[in-house]
Amino acid sequence: MVNETQHTCSASSSSRSDGGSSSGSESSKDNSRCSTPVLDADRHERLREKMRRRQDAGDKWFSLEFFPPRTANAAVNLISRFDRMGAGGPLFIDVTWHPAGDPGSDKETSSMIIANTAVNYCGLETILHMTCCNQTKDDITGHLQKAKRLGLKNIMALRGDPAGEEWEEEVDGFNYAVDLVKHIRSEFDDYFDICVAGYPKGHPEAESYEADLRHLKEKVFAGADFIITQLFFRPETFLKFMKDCQAIGITCPIIPGIFPIQGYHSLRQLVKLSKLEVPQEIKDVIEPIKDNDAAIRNYGVELAVSMCRELLDSGMVHGLHFYTLNREVATTEVLKRLGIWKEDPRRPLPWAVSAHPKRRVEDVRPIFWASRPKSYIYRTQEWDDFPNGRWGNSSSPAFGELKDYYLFYLKSKSPREELLKMWGEELTGEESVFEVFTCYITGEPNRNGYKVTCMPWNDDPLATETNLLKDQLEKVNRRGILTINSQPNINGKPSTDPIVGWGPSGGYVFQKAYLEFFTSSEIVTALLKVLKKYELRVNYHIVNVKGQNITNAPDLQPNAVTWGIFPGREIIQPTVVDPVSFLSWKDEAFALWIEQWAKLYEEESPSRMIIQYIHDNYYLVNLVDNDFPLENCLWQVVEDTFELLN
Amino acid sequence: MVNETQHTCSASSSSRSDGGSSSGSESSKDNSRCSTPVLDADRHERLREKMRRRQDAGDKWFSLEFFPPRTANAAVNLISRFDRMGAGGPLFIDVTWHPAGDPGSDKETSSMIIANTAVNYCGLETILHMTCCNQTKDDITGHLQKAKRLGLKNIMALRGDPAGEEWEEEVDGFNYAVDLVKHIRSEFDDYFDICVAGYPKGHPEAESYEADLRHLKEKVFAGADFIITQLFFRPETFLKFMKDCQAIGITCPIIPGIFPIQGYHSLRQLVKLSKLEVPQEIKDVIEPIKDNDAAIRNYGVELAVSMCRELLDSGMVHGLHFYTLNREVATTEVLKRLGIWKEDPRRPLPWAVSAHPKRRVEDVRPIFWASRPKSYIYRTQEWDDFPNGRWGNSSSPAFGELKDYYLFYLKSKSPREELLKMWGEELTGEESVFEVFTCYITGEPNRNGYKVTCMPWNDDPLATETNLLKDQLEKVNRRGILTINSQPNINGKPSTDPIVGWGPSGGYVFQKAYLEFFTSSEIVTALLKVLKKYELRVNYHIVNVKGQNITNAPDLQPNAVTWGIFPGREIIQPTVVDPVSFLSWKDEAFALWIEQWAKLYEEESPSRMIIQYIHDNYYLVNLVDNDFPLENCLWQVVEDTFELLN
Repeated sequence: MVNETQHTCSASSSSRSDGGSSSGSESSKDNSRCSTPVLDADRHERLREKMRRRQDAGDKWFSLEFFPPRTANAAVNLISRFDRMGAGGPLFIDVTWHPAGDPGSDKETSSMIIANTAVNYCGLETILHMTCCNQTKDDITGHLQKAKRLGLKNIMALRGDPAGEEWEEEVDGFNYAVDLVKHIRSEFDDYFDICVAGYPKGHPEAESYEADLRHLKEKVFAGADFIITQLFFRPETFLKFMKDCQAIGITCPIIPGIFPIQGYHSLRQLVKLSKLEVPQEIKDVIEPIKDNDAAIRNYGVELAVSMCRELLDSGMVHGLHFYTLNREVATTEVLKRLGIWKEDPRRPLPWAVSAHPKRRVEDVRPIFWASRPKSYIYRTQEWDDFPNGRWGNSSSPAFGELKDYYLFYLKSKSPREELLKMWGEELTGEESVFEVFTCYITGEPNRNGYKVTCMPWNDDPLATETNLLKDQLEKVNRRGILTINSQPNINGKPSTDPIVGWGPSGGYVFQKAYLEFFTSSEIVTALLKVLKKYELRVNYHIVNVKGQNITNAPDLQPNAVTWGIFPGREIIQPTVVDPVSFLSWKDEAFALWIEQWAKLYEEESPSRMIIQYIHDNYYLVNLVDNDFPLENCLWQVVEDTFELLN
Repeated sequence: MVNETQHTCSASSSSRSDGGSSSGSESSKDNSRCSTPVLDADRHERLREKMRRRQDAGDKWFSLEFFPPRTANAAVNLISRFDRMGAGGPLFIDVTWHPAGDPGSDKETSSMIIANTAVNYCGLETILHMTCCNQTKDDITGHLQKAKRLGLKNIMALRGDPAGEEWEEEVDGFNYAVDLVKHIRSEFDDYFDICVAGYPKGHPEAESYEADLRHLKEKVFAGADFIITQLFFRPETFLKFMKDCQAIGITCPIIPGIFPIQGYHSLRQLVKLSKLEVPQEIKDVIEPIKDNDAAIRNYGVELAVSMCRELLDSGMVHGLHFYTLNREVATTEVLKRLGIWKEDPRRPLPWAVSAHPKRRVEDVRPIFWASRPKSYIYRTQEWDDFPNGRWGNSSSPAFGELKDYYLFYLKSKSPREELLKMWGEELTGEESVFEVFTCYITGEPNRNGYKVTCMPWNDDPLATETNLLKDQLEKVNRRGILTINSQPNINGKPSTDPIVGWGPSGGYVFQKAYLEFFTSSEIVTALLKVLKKYELRVNYHIVNVKGQNITNAPDLQPNAVTWGIFPGREIIQPTVVDPVSFLSWKDEAFALWIEQWAKLYEEESPSRMIIQYIHDNYYLVNLVDNDFPLENCLWQVVEDTFELLN
């Protein structure tokens, strides 16, 4: 009787296959005793598997193409764009390869480093383009090894443009993308997912459309996993191409490349490069409005939306690939109108995950870096293991030094002049520092009329969650409790809660109230007296720049301050207050006073000396209220402290 | 300013020192990434450290001495006594060494195996006595190695009685306890805590009281950690002895041995063996009532209480060691009257922990063995690691076979005749089985007037916690949902709750509702239909004896069903529903039908065939309601199932 409805143990495991991957899957098996419960298949699947799963679920997706920036400043901006556009939920992004721009180098603007940043720091599934013509086998292998080392898992294998007109085939060289595909498969087995380019109108250099289809089939049969097409202007172009591909036996996913027209000049340039012809009906619309950027963009959006709708409605298309030209507005608008931009993406964990394969088991971080996740990732990049929340043993890996505060993806997005306006051209005392903190919390303009939108410890405006604590935070900052991190207590909110929720639906999330601040030794002395009354209920760590450390943490164990309970899972506890890593964080938190703030001012200037004084004399304090079901007592602790001082 | 109140990181760690232990502490360090947070110092300290900590805290304690039983049945009873008297919170128990009884053998009545059981199965800190005279060095080393292998950590080093009158010192042999102490320290370094015997009146064979004190000092200086004294009848005897010890430089703890007089004959025998003289004032009381056991015991209790009070009041005594003679009543009474019997011992975890050193990091078990913890310990005794709740990977250690259902400490405490009275001399159908289950739940007598106080899956009466579910359980058992395990949902009760609390105080405990039962395939078919409505909310595993397994557990991950949140700690999740170990449990749960129930009846008898039918055809089902903050829906699931069937 039961056999009809029966699904056996092995069959009920939905993500059991790792596609025979050789290296990535091994490590997670070794670690499985201590590893995270599989909370989010997205973190464990290869790109090809994600595509398949989305397709099986009838879940439409999109992806975004970017090119590497020219300057370090542009790189900082591009990374912010990754974060913002990443929030919309692309299945992947890809980064083009510019042979002229030293694409495999360690320069902050290289294709390799931009892709690395997208994967590791922005947590985005990323495809790195790579071209092969005019390159030696060793060069290419070197690039691929480096990509693998950096955690990149996907390569778009391209021929690239021959240098100059007199290009000739090299014997034993890489003459076509198919050579690169074969090389990747022979040298790296199944490690990389490989994407190749398709030309809906045929490659401009191909003998014929049919010959080009045959070349595409060769690339697929050499080991490519899916195809992204060159841009096209009419949906029927793509649909015909897709049918033709299928007719000759190409069965892998084929993703249409969408180019929303964003301006007259960019269109002309692209057409020139791609040797495509713009259809007359489009020219007819564009030519009369060619000097009206806004009108052209509106038209481009309309056109893209209607083309995408037609593609999706055909039932043959499951994902759309967007040529963004590194711009945000048009693509975002198209995606929103199509309804595939995720307005409220579910967070798998309460912090931004990294997409490096070795981090897919990472399920816990110290709370200290909550506003500086990129710094945390940077400082733990050499770790082999991502421990389950216990750093207390002697063999735990060390935190890397944050030597270069100007590391480009940690650099403030605001230039010096702007920072001075926010944080004060001239400080007159510790009180003017209190004021900066207070303005950051309240969102009110400072005395010179500027809003404080970032702080050295937080490059972004206040988190939504922190807003829940705004009134209390304002009060204490005014009086010299300079808060840099906090969270409210949460006693079992649904995991789908728009503000504090995370993890799979059907669960409940919890938090212990947390407060972290700099403050004077005078206040610390009073605070310690007050804390005696709260023994057991409140755990504290109090440290100064020299490392003098006062704590009541039992046995130096981490204190879990964020956890979630989910259907059919073990408990997840992704955020802890960890006594050992707090000492690493302390170095960073104190150094930010000097590196980001004091150094805005002339040496020996009074402003600089004020910040230096705070750096040398203040304490960094963190407090946890363990009684999460009761009203947060930390405000009372602070209130009692002020009372004692008066 | 802060330096005054400052206690640094290292100084705030309360249990940092492991006393230089060589082997025990190593393994926990290696495991510390995955190991349990230190919830309970008791599990991690050596006996000598526990003594010191109790003394420092001004916390009075007691310990209990037992001798090995003569028969297997007596062993079963003694182990029940360990469990009962263990509940009162002794600091340790000790098991005497009977050279005539093959004390180091694997016999279920040997000193070695009784001590092993106390440590591993009853979770008691245990001292194994060992005598050395008339034994070879190799024999003794062998015993010690075996003790270490079994997880014993403490040895009481004794000379033992010479065999016969014509005993002579052996050159290079073990002539005195001090030789054994030296041998243990030289062969096992600091692995064992060593206890030696002290004689408040001097050893009967010593030249003098003073000479005996010198011998004692030799034993201590050879490496003994503490002293337990021979019994004595007057408190001043002990207090003088203790002062004399201190005067000659013995500084280790000296624990008075207390002998509550329990009967005329046992007193006489003990006096004969120990060559002690009973004081006249005691003889004067006892002789007239020598045939009145109750009167003598009452007097013995009075005497012991007043002596113990005097000892404790002296301020020199922190712990009391009781010679129980394997009896419960008198000692328990004395302890209760002294107020050092723990009426409500705190549970470090919701299940009974084992005291084997390799299990001190054990912090999670499958819920299935909740009523059979000794079976779980037995079946995992070969494990090297006690995993953090994840058995799902291929390299997880296998569960040992439970080949011998008559393994003495898993044997039912009730004899066959009694079981037949409880479970039915003659079964007339499945309904008579339903009735047995129902009577077990309700506590009402069965149709023949007998209460059902145990079941094959549960050797004890219903747990207090299960009582919370009594009404519902009764209803479903009547209708053929034969429950063998269950727990209510708990949404954050204090960890000090007398019924469901566990772990350190100041925390909160949680549970998901759980229900496990055998039931017919007819009911399973309906149940599966009903469960579709509860998808996500309810996780289930349904399996028959052949291993046909139906589940909706995601990715075969364990589901945490009991967890606790504590001040300054990581989350503890000591109980899980684990899909992999469920299949091992299934074998045991089905086999118990046959081994414990069916085999009570003649082969081919109708009663036996009924049980055999159930074994062959019923399913074992477990259900978890993931929505722990809401009202338990499992009763509704069952209700819906019955409704569907009607």
